[in-house]
This record gives sequence, structure tokens and C-alpha cells, in this order.
Amino acid sequence: MDSRFGVTELEDLPEDLRERIGVIAEKSGFVPNVFRALGHRPAELRAFLDYHDALMERSDGLSKAERELVVVATSGANHCTYCVVAHGAILRIRAKDPQLADRVATNPWQVELDERGRAIVDLALALARKPELFGEAEIEAARKAGLTEDEIWDVGAITALFAMSNRLAHLTALRPNPEFYAMGRDQKR
Amino acid sequence: MDSRFGVTELEDLPEDLRERIGVIAEKSGFVPNVFRALGHRPAELRAFLDYHDALMERSDGLSKAERELVVVATSGANHCTYCVVAHGAILRIRAKDPQLADRVATNPWQVELDERGRAIVDLALALARKPELFGEAEIEAARKAGLTEDEIWDVGAITALFAMSNRLAHLTALRPNPEFYAMGRDQKR
Amino acid sequence: MDSRFGVTELEDLPEDLRERIGVIAEKSGFVPNVFRALGHRPAELRAFLDYHDALMERSDGLSKAERELVVVATSGANHCTYCVVAHGAILRIRAKDPQLADRVATNPWQVELDERGRAIVDLALALARKPELFGEAEIEAARKAGLTEDEIWDVGAITALFAMSNRLAHLTALRPNPEFYAMGRDQKR
Amino acid sequence: MDSRFGVTELEDLPEDLRERIGVIAEKSGFVPNVFRALGHRPAELRAFLDYHDALMERSDGLSKAERELVVVATSGANHCTYCVVAHGAILRIRAKDPQLADRVATNPWQVELDERGRAIVDLALALARKPELFGEAEIEAARKAGLTEDEIWDVGAITALFAMSNRLAHLTALRPNPEFYAMGRDQKR
Amino acid sequence: MDSRFGVTELEDLPEDLRERIGVIAEKSGFVPNVFRALGHRPAELRAFLDYHDALMERSDGLSKAERELVVVATSGANHCTYCVVAHGAILRIRAKDPQLADRVATNPWQVELDERGRAIVDLALALARKPELFGEAEIEAARKAGLTEDEIWDVGAITALFAMSNRLAHLTALRPNPEFYAMGRDQKR
Amino acid sequence: MDSRFGVTELEDLPEDLRERIGVIAEKSGFVPNVFRALGHRPAELRAFLDYHDALMERSDGLSKAERELVVVATSGANHCTYCVVAHGAILRIRAKDPQLADRVATNPWQVELDERGRAIVDLALALARKPELFGEAEIEAARKAGLTEDEIWDVGAITALFAMSNRLAHLTALRPNPEFYAMGRDQKR
Repeated sequence: MDSRFGVTELEDLPEDLRERIGVIAEKSGFVPNVFRALGHRPAELRAFLDYHDALMERSDGLSKAERELVVVATSGANHCTYCVVAHGAILRIRAKDPQLADRVATNPWQVELDERGRAIVDLALALARKPELFGEAEIEAARKAGLTEDEIWDVGAITALFAMSNRLAHLTALRPNPEFYAMGRDQKR
Repeated sequence: MDSRFGVTELEDLPEDLRERIGVIAEKSGFVPNVFRALGHRPAELRAFLDYHDALMERSDGLSKAERELVVVATSGANHCTYCVVAHGAILRIRAKDPQLADRVATNPWQVELDERGRAIVDLALALARKPELFGEAEIEAARKAGLTEDEIWDVGAITALFAMSNRLAHLTALRPNPEFYAMGRDQKR
Repeated sequence: MDSRFGVTELEDLPEDLRERIGVIAEKSGFVPNVFRALGHRPAELRAFLDYHDALMERSDGLSKAERELVVVATSGANHCTYCVVAHGAILRIRAKDPQLADRVATNPWQVELDERGRAIVDLALALARKPELFGEAEIEAARKAGLTEDEIWDVGAITALFAMSNRLAHLTALRPNPEFYAMGRDQKR
Repeated sequence: MDSRFGVTELEDLPEDLRERIGVIAEKSGFVPNVFRALGHRPAELRAFLDYHDALMERSDGLSKAERELVVVATSGANHCTYCVVAHGAILRIRAKDPQLADRVATNPWQVELDERGRAIVDLALALARKPELFGEAEIEAARKAGLTEDEIWDVGAITALFAMSNRLAHLTALRPNPEFYAMGRDQKR
Repeated sequence: MDSRFGVTELEDLPEDLRERIGVIAEKSGFVPNVFRALGHRPAELRAFLDYHDALMERSDGLSKAERELVVVATSGANHCTYCVVAHGAILRIRAKDPQLADRVATNPWQVELDERGRAIVDLALALARKPELFGEAEIEAARKAGLTEDEIWDVGAITALFAMSNRLAHLTALRPNPEFYAMGRDQKR
Repeated sequence: MDSRFGVTELEDLPEDLRERIGVIAEKSGFVPNVFRALGHRPAELRAFLDYHDALMERSDGLSKAERELVVVATSGANHCTYCVVAHGAILRIRAKDPQLADRVATNPWQVELDERGRAIVDLALALARKPELFGEAEIEAARKAGLTEDEIWDVGAITALFAMSNRLAHLTALRPNPEFYAMGRDQKR
């Protein structure tokens, strides 16, 4: 089963969602399972898509690859199979790097990154797993590495969004579409 | 400071948000700080409100008080001051109980609840703190206690939503409005 | 039930304890449940009161409010409902602050405090939860923040005393008296 | 240094404590360092001795060896060198077993014990390290293994007392007297 | 750098190791970096190979794929990038499954497996991360799922061997050879 | 039982192992149980001995006592009774110190050591318990304390070897030989 609670196929979604997810499906060649799993709750799926797009498609600040870096690092720390496999594929493509995603997902704490990448991942991990300890020290370290206030917000808010997404995937025992596993593995570095 | 990244006052929000939050402010007598803190990112605030309403104002399944129980339990486990204080107030009012919120927030694992309440909180806690261990056993226990599939989804999805909200509050060092602390403390049990 | 092992009422205590707790009861308007729960073991209750008074009523060094700060912070970290609710009330009164106790109890690691308050709470938390890691570095940090040797001892010893008290409360599933929840909430800051 | 905060020698203690600890010193052949370390706070030392004697010298319920078993198991779990070495010696003598103490202290979770011993240690460990999770299930398991309410209290209260003692030892970096290391090692099983 | 301490190339190894690893290199098309990283300590590399072969090439009991399952599950739990990537490739090949390795490595606790697979992974995880809690209960669960004593030994001993290997990889910041990432991804299930 | 899976006596081992372990037995006066427990898998026992000797009998770099210090510290952190008791005895002899082993095993994080000893133990502990967090910072700290690259390797590799040994002991519920408990306790410091 792709989701513990069953799935809703594209054609059974309300029209606005059918269209919106149809565009994604056309681009990917398949309907990512997360949309099928959330489909029976259209209001929630709509808000999920809105939140996702507001943060992941934002043009200012963090690059698209950096946004996916946050997703893969925190989903790895949360051991979320769907998000690691699906967003790992996107990170390979966005970063044009066939190895980065597996390395980030397996050990985000020690994966070799440049200073900016390390600062982004450290900030994200601090908020992801022990949020009660997150404070001024973490913010200060990010600033020292050159992140702007706006970028710090993005890292934090994406981490928060995937704290939610990861748990939705754990809740539903969400299975990655088979296509994701191999996508972007032939990138040339 | 009410938020580490500054706040946006009601009058500076886009019209739709001003109206929407205006309604809440009128009812409460003040603008809850979470809206002021998220205000400089209207698209995110809009998605946040939509997600919140889709889950917290749903009429089927869990009662309003039970929804707040999930919020207070997981926010307590995540040591999120804003959510514990603000939703603690709401729980006191919804459950018509002046003590329940403090007891749930301080020790959600062992607070005395009836069987249904305990099942709801156990399910929420399992997903909140170590989502990688969440699985069929937790779902099964919830079913045994009589929760429907729809109610299980609600508990899980609210837990996920506040995994996000808690982290946004930690990110912004969000301060509870002073009014929340005393609200609902004169409930008669 | 106020305690898992039953309670002993004031009138059934040995005379010295009846008198001693009678004074407290008169001042508060009720007999705090901890004394009723420990009452069937008079020798232990006597030692408990002696230890408590030796540390909490000491006139040198830490202020009364600072002593309660240690209690609320470590009881929060230990998720002890009785101590958080009862000593939260006392902290509100001693610190003349209606919000501090809830904020300290919910997230002692990140609650905003002045430098001295932060040093006190950091020292207490280090000893409370992972005592095996406590060492010279924690002592040194406290000294740097201006705490005297005597004050460091007080913070450590109060933390130790409530490591015991918290566990007695967990052992007995001790319930806070209803009066504690609202006490001191009308303090003006 | 035997204690981070200095020590008070027997002859410098108030008369009642000098006498009381003098008796212990005579029996052991030396003054256990814990008394020297607490000596500069006579009121606290007095309460400590009273609490200790009320629980450790009680004649009902748990045997003397079982009381020491609780101390060594929880002090091992708390990595408290003074208590493990000093009470390890007493356990060897009380249990007439030269190996038990080292085995309990090193791995209290899995050390081989008879059913009653295992129930005592399990109850103690549950309360010692994650008291927030301690509840009816732990009490029930102890009852099933045949422990009386009075014995359950003893196990819990001794665990609580040494949660305090261990932290006092960590606070003071308390050194075990050299004599303790070898005491009782020639017991015949 | 492929290893924090430098590498030794095949031609610089002592003859017996050059031959032995030469065979592996010929089969794979490259020299796995673990051998280059351990090469400057030939006696250790020799013992490592012997231990590895004794456990991983054993013909009785566990299948080859099941042995790799233990490796990938525990290396995932230990966040060891080299072992996850290298043995993930071998698992894909041995299990003739292009998805299993990523799913096991990302969340070994909840990955869907048949009963025997689940028992193997549960046993391995129990020993891998909190060995102090490992005991008769874990052994009993494995027996109940049908594992023989010999198979239980194999699961435990492979887990132990990779507790070592993982730490050698962490010590040396060992990089997976690029070839491993894509190997076995075109398996048909 | 000395091992959960039974033991193999010296005379039933293959000739090379009988001879090799015979030498140890003659020197100690008894056959250490670890060899009896591993004896039914001669190839594994052989590799174990080879690995052990390659690291523990190496003449360069760390002293013999320092190698045992790593073993006792990490075995203490892993709560491995066999290794703590057996190697505790060896450490007492090698370090000519009757107290060091008990202090290191009980609390390796805070035991008082000179700067070099502390650096060795800190490095070992970092790798032993949360290997995923081990990285350049730990290596750098060791270098600053004066450890050579070769010594750092030794500390790391011995830690890794005993990550394995400890787990084999946990797997087999390995009992220390009674002789180990008292060995070396009459050392003069």
C-alpha cells in the first residue's frame, strides 16, 4: 500500500487540485504519492501545497538547491523515507550532483560541505531534532557564516515545514514512488 | 521583543489577512503574537491559517477540546512556550477545566486521562518526538482504544502541524501575549 | 486520589509534624499535598522538611526568588507536575511576576533571563538531567557569571534536593492542590 | 582534593555531628568523605543523615542488602563514582558476594538477578533516569513480582534519596576514600 | 580526500594483501576505499578481512542478502555513509531489489519487511545502538520468529563487526567510491 | 552459564588456537571466558585475536596502560560488564594503580586525568557512543593536546575494536571469570 490510509487518484480530486497536481504529474511523469495520500482531505492538501510553494519556490535568498539541502538534511535526521527518496532526487537534479543527497541524508551532521552549506545544515538540524535547545547561539552562528535574516528565516521555516511533512509521511507510512530512486543519478558533477 | 525577527501590526497586513485576523483579534481582545510574527511573509501566514483552520475547526471526529489536547500535549513535549501558554488557555476554555492544561503540558506522558484521552495523547506523543519509531503498533493501539481512522488522521495531522508551529515559535523566540496566561483559569470543573 | 499510596491528614500526624505543618497550612489556607503524601513515614517527612528549610529558607547568598527559580527550572526539566504547579505559584509570588514561572517551567533551556538568572538556571539544568557530564566547565561558567562558591553550592544542592522531591512526586503520582494553579497570577510586574 | 568545595574534618563539626559521624568512623576505620564534604553545612548534613538512616536502616520490608542493591544500581545508572565505590563496598559485605556490586554498577539493566531482585532494580531504574515516564505500569510490574506497597515505597524513596546524593557527589567532585575500593572483596559466596 | 589519514594504493600493500584485494578490485572494477584507508596498517587490515570473510561469506544459516540487510540496517542507524553506500550497493545486488537498501538505511526501525526480515533487523538494531539494554528478551523474540541459535549469533556478530567498521569509517571520514552510488539500481524486482 | 551460547573448552579448540590461548591461560592462571565463548567459531576467534594483538600489543605510540584506558573508558560507557571487569584488572596492573579502573569505568566523562589522558578518553568517548557526530573538531582537539596522527588512529581503532567486543559480550551475556574482580587491587600507587 502506498499510504496506510489509502490514496486518492488524480481524477478523483477537486478540480483545482486536479489541475495543480496535474501540472506536477506531467512534468515528473507520475503523481508523487504524497499528493495521493493527502488527497482525501482537500483543504489540508491545498494548504500543504500553498505552504510548500511559498517556501520552496521563493526566488529571494536561498537557492533552490539550498532549499532542498535543508529538506534532505532534516528528513535524513528524522529518518523519513519518503522525503529522503523524493527530495533526494530533486536535490541531485538541483545541485547537479549525483552523490550529495545520499551523503547528506545518511549523515547530515558530518557530511563535508562548504562553509555556507555547513551553516545552513547546522541551523536546520538544531531546530529539527531538539527544538527546545534552539536559541540565540544558533542564530548567531548562522549570521557569522554570512546568512541574512531572510535566509535564516527560510532555513528555519523549511525545517519547520518538513517537521510537519516528515510526520505526515510517518503517519501514513508513505511509500516513495519507484521512479524517485534512480532520478538524477546520472548527473555529471 | 515579541519575535526575534520583528512583528507586523494588523494594519500593515494585506487586506485579506487584516480582515481574517481582525475577526480573531476582536474575539480575543488582542492580536495573538503568532500572527504578528508571521505577518511579514503573507503567503506563509495565509497557508498557516488555512492549514490550522482545516484541522482545528473541523466538525467531524475529535471534539474541539480533544484537538487542543493534542496541541498542548505535543507542545509540552516540545517545550514550546508560546503554544503551551496560548493553547493552554484555549484548552482550559474548551475543556471547561482550569487545571487540565498545566497538567498536560508539564507531563503529557503520565497525566491522568480517561482511556480515550490517554490513547489520543499517546498517539500524538509517539509521532511528536521520535517519528522514526512510529508505526503500525501505535496505530493499532489507537484503534483498540476506539479511535476511528478519521480520528487517528486528525491526531496525527494536528501533531504534525504543531511540529511545524512549535518550531516556528522556537525560530522566532515567540512570546505569548500576556493575556493568555490567566485566560480560562476561573473555569468551574 | 491525591497520592498513589494514600494520604495522612494533619490531625493524624505526630505532634511535632502537626504543629510544623499546621503553621504552613494556616499561612496557605490549605495543607500542601506533599505533606499529606509523606505523612505515613514521619521520620522521612521530618528529614524532608529539615532539608527543605535548610536550603530554601537560608538567608545568605541566593534570594528567595532565585531559589524558587532553581526549583521551577529543574522540576520543569523533570516534568514534575506537583513541583511545577506548587513552586510555580511560589515563584510568581516571590518574583512578583505572573508570567515567569510558566515560561521557566515550559522551556528552562531558552527562557529569557538576565545573565545571573541564566547562569543559575544553566548550572541547575546541567546537574539535573545528565549529572554524569557535570564538571569543572559548568562550575567555571557559573563563577564567570559572578556566582560565589556559596551560591554555586546552593544552586547545586537545591537541584539535588528537587531531584529527590520530583521523584517522590512521580513515585506517588502526587496531585497539586487546586489552589496552587491560580495563586499569584494577579501579580503586577 | 576530596571535594571541590573543601572538606571539614571530624573535630571541626558541631558536637552532635562529631559524635554521630564518630561512631561511623570508628566502625569503618575512617571518615567517609561524603561527611567531610557536607560538613560545612551542618543543617544540611544533619538532614542528610536523618533521611539516610530513616530509609537505609529501616527494619521492615526490604533487606539491608536489597536497599544497597537499589543504591548501587541507580548510582551506576547515574555514573556516580563516590556512591558506586562506597556503597559497592557495603553491598559486597551485606550481600556476602564479592562480585555482585561490580556487575550491578556496570550494567544494572541486564545484570542477572532473581525475580525479586530484578523487579527491585527495574523499578529503581525507571524512576532514576526518566522519572517523567514513571507511572502505574512500573508500579504494577513491581506488585506482580510480589513487592508490597511498603517495599515499593522503599525502592522509590531510596532511588529518590540517591538521585540527590549522586548529584551532591557530582557537584562536589567527591572522591571515594581509598579504603572502599578493596573492602569486602574477599567475601565467600 | 578519501580518508582523513591518507590512503595506501594497491601496489604499495604487502604481497598477500595486494593479491587478496586485487581479486576484489578485479571483480568490482575498483579498489573499495576502505582497503586503501586501512592499508597503512597491514596487520589490522588482514584481521579486518579475515573477520569480514568469516562472517559475511559463511555458507550456513543467513543468506548473503540477509547478512547485507544487517549491515545496511545497523550502518543506517549509525549514520555511516561509507557503509550505507557501499553495502547498499551490495544489498541491491544480493536482494535483486533496487529500492530495499535506501529504505532500510533511511529508516531501519519501520521499513516494511517480512516477519523473518523484521526479526533480523530488530535484533540487529537492539544490539547496535543501546547494547547495555540488550538481553534475553531480544534473543527470545528472535527465537520466536524462527531464527536458530546459529542465525542469532550471525546477526549479533555481524552487528558487532559493523559497530567496528562504522567507527573506522567515522574515524577516517571515509568516502564511498563514486561507483557504489549507482550500482545495482537497475535490478528488476 | 558463562555464555548464553555455551562455551568451548581449551582442549576442544583447533590446535593453533589451543596453543595461542594456552599461553594466555598459563600466564593468567585461567582461560578468560571470552575465548571460551568465541571458541565454537574458530575463524572468528582467530580474527579477533589477530585484531586484538595488532592494536593492543603494538609497541609504538600509546603506552600499554593508555591502550587499556581506552578499553575501560569505552566499555564503561557501553556498560559492558565483561570488558570492564577483565580489562579493569589489566588496567590496574598496567597503570600500577588500584583505583583508576573503577573510576574510569564508572564515569569516564568526568574522571580526573592529566591533559593527555583526558584527551585520549574524550576522543574515545566521542567515537564510542554517538559516532555520527564524530568529526574534525574531535580530531583537532586531540591534536591540540599533543596526540600524533598515529596515536589518534590507535585511540580510534581500539575504540572501534571494543565497540565490537562489547557487543559480542552483550550478545553472549558473557560472564567475567571470578579471578578478574580482585586482580591488581593491591597495587601501590
